[in-house]
Amino acid sequence: MARRISRKISNSTIHRLSIYYRALMGLEREGYDTISSKELAKREKLTPAQVRKDLSFFGSFGTRGLGYPVKELKQRIAEILGLNRLWNVAMVGVGNVGSALVSYKEFARQGFIIKLLFDNDQRKIGSNHKGIIISDIANMKSQLKENEITIVILTVPASAAQKVCDDIVEAGVKAILNFAPVSLKVPDDVNLLNENMAIELEHLSFSLTNRNMVMFD
Amino acid sequence: MARRISRKISNSTIHRLSIYYRALMGLEREGYDTISSKELAKREKLTPAQVRKDLSFFGSFGTRGLGYPVKELKQRIAEILGLNRLWNVAMVGVGNVGSALVSYKEFARQGFIIKLLFDNDQRKIGSNHKGIIISDIANMKSQLKENEITIVILTVPASAAQKVCDDIVEAGVKAILNFAPVSLKVPDDVNLLNENMAIELEHLSFSLTNRNMVMFD
Repeated sequence: MARRISRKISNSTIHRLSIYYRALMGLEREGYDTISSKELAKREKLTPAQVRKDLSFFGSFGTRGLGYPVKELKQRIAEILGLNRLWNVAMVGVGNVGSALVSYKEFARQGFIIKLLFDNDQRKIGSNHKGIIISDIANMKSQLKENEITIVILTVPASAAQKVCDDIVEAGVKAILNFAPVSLKVPDDVNLLNENMAIELEHLSFSLTNRNMVMFD
Repeated sequence: MARRISRKISNSTIHRLSIYYRALMGLEREGYDTISSKELAKREKLTPAQVRKDLSFFGSFGTRGLGYPVKELKQRIAEILGLNRLWNVAMVGVGNVGSALVSYKEFARQGFIIKLLFDNDQRKIGSNHKGIIISDIANMKSQLKENEITIVILTVPASAAQKVCDDIVEAGVKAILNFAPVSLKVPDDVNLLNENMAIELEHLSFSLTNRNMVMFD
């Protein structure tokens, strides 16, 4: 079913796929069978041309004049994003950010199941956090393998992040979402995404500072 | 000093400015006086052409053959991003995500000062959270104005988000970072950024699902 894709894709396009996916979930709930690129664009403050370009990237959808079939398009985007399956996720570092993220309901809703929690704090190890026993980070490498963890959320302090990251990579994990405010080195075949909340605020301070500038996605 | 800018800029470029800013802080610490576009690109896994294009957008920097002056470029990007001043920030909703973000040290480091916290939970109102007294959300509108809050971080449940957002807009706030997993409506002159952690994980599941695809920024 899924076509083999071997082209370059911008990170912005991938991000918009997630946006379209959520819009289509809403449209399905509202009872829509089809949606035009124009209407989908309007809802997400994009141009119809952008929507058509993004979606045509993955093959042809929709019929001219009739729009996209909501259910099928949603299902196809789910396949493309890898949301038609479950992903075993581990969280390393159960501090402020980590413990907040464990409670983030949308992870499980999208198929990201937090299976393991790790920390190096003896007071935390062995305790139950939202239904998951916190494991000793000393056992992380073997447990990541045994539990077939494919994605790790890294929420350790900046000073510890590279060492922990190296261990995660050695355990064979190919996808890391890093919250530590530090630039990590990983091999080319590991997908590293850096999440920095301050950078989001900088986007807003940019907007407030440059009010005469038009931003586009 | 700051040149008047009146062009279109992509959100990716704005994001990269924050990345360059951090790289330049590191380079300054390491004692570099100048940096070439090639070296800066290599550090951030970008192309030199991309770096030059992003930076030339804001006027000419650097000297051919000598590279960019680290300190001046850092200072100039700080001006562009609005980081050469302090911003008064309020956080609305002191649940899991909100309370984690209050502890996020990089906010203050970049000039984003959390001045006010709001919640509607009577058990939280009046209590001291990391040095800030949590205020009643019923008094939010007037307090946002009195304290000249320019940026609000919205971390209330999805069901309450639009109503609270409307009040924030009525208080004259022009920049909102929304963590509620819901699509909010704001007037055109309000900058709304939606932060969704699940979308970050979807980026990783996309990468794992489409390994033969090259992603670019």
